[in-house]
Amino acid sequence: MTDLSPEEAARHREKMAKRKAVQDAEVAEKTLEKGLLIIHTGAGKGKSTAAFGLALRILGHGGRVGVVQFIKGAWHSAERDALTSFGDRVEWHSMGEGFTWETQDKARDIAACARAWEKARELLADPSIGLVILDELNIALRYDYLPLEAVVAALRQRRPDLHVVVTGRNAKPELIEAADLVTEMTLVKHHFKTGVKAQKGIEF
Amino acid sequence: MTDLSPEEAARHREKMAKRKAVQDAEVAEKTLEKGLLIIHTGAGKGKSTAAFGLALRILGHGGRVGVVQFIKGAWHSAERDALTSFGDRVEWHSMGEGFTWETQDKARDIAACARAWEKARELLADPSIGLVILDELNIALRYDYLPLEAVVAALRQRRPDLHVVVTGRNAKPELIEAADLVTEMTLVKHHFKTGVKAQKGIEF
Repeated sequence: MTDLSPEEAARHREKMAKRKAVQDAEVAEKTLEKGLLIIHTGAGKGKSTAAFGLALRILGHGGRVGVVQFIKGAWHSAERDALTSFGDRVEWHSMGEGFTWETQDKARDIAACARAWEKARELLADPSIGLVILDELNIALRYDYLPLEAVVAALRQRRPDLHVVVTGRNAKPELIEAADLVTEMTLVKHHFKTGVKAQKGIEF
Repeated sequence: MTDLSPEEAARHREKMAKRKAVQDAEVAEKTLEKGLLIIHTGAGKGKSTAAFGLALRILGHGGRVGVVQFIKGAWHSAERDALTSFGDRVEWHSMGEGFTWETQDKARDIAACARAWEKARELLADPSIGLVILDELNIALRYDYLPLEAVVAALRQRRPDLHVVVTGRNAKPELIEAADLVTEMTLVKHHFKTGVKAQKGIEF
């Protein structure tokens, strides 16, 4: 594959030079700087995981990160263990009590979501924090466990340079409307279908 | 929203108890343990970011992680800075020389991919590593800069308990066929469209 004729190499060079000009022009058009409201939704894997990957990027730039988990409780902690090695640059609050089919108590689930949202508002108001991750907030909104309008309004009114990531399936259209960047994680193939169980380091 | 009648609370409890029984039965069916071949593909954001999030999970469990970047070079380093704070538990190799339209030199791109694949084979053979991230390998395969059959064969022949994540758009069907878990990141909405530029901590 490495035997390129001089003509082929020249054609490639010319094509790539044109492509670079297009890329450079596109980058130059974009001048706004702002904190982004980012949504990771869809039935696929990677919604929370990509949010924690973004946390790494902020930490790599020397920033601080706040995390509120709306559904998951203390059992889900490998990322937390890793991120808390960054000391007080990560503020992590697992405010959930597990999935709805684990608690089987709707009033308790609603109360847990209200407490989680209270903590989220604290982090959103903290000027030392550069990224707030609201993990599984979409689930709380989907079940109407939190008032959608108030949540969307608070997110829209965030500090102009604050990044926020909201994760969970079935993001509400009103939240997508307010967002800057929305990615849907789509399941193409899953090992559970072939009897493989949840793997340490991957699922938990 | 918190005023539940006793009847409503009981109906919820019963519904969730049934759902838990279904969930438990599904979990019990899955008994295989194995290292997974995971693909993050699609035009949306979060492919590499979710891979680095998985690295956190492995690190949280006390494991070691190897990373080879096939396209990106040294300029892309915030996650790297953060992950290398885990010391020798992360082995990071940025073997790329930038995008094809930056180098404008096909022979050089092919040589860089060959060196990156050599390094990947070393990491795949290292018994101390629990997760290998082959970042943007899909791009190298898409442009036929590496021999697809040999790459897929090496990934299939990995150690049974080794997890591998391959990222990049346009994953080859042969690779998807060999994979355990494939997620497509789909772009729903992007801030570049409204003139917002790449943001520190988010895009780089």
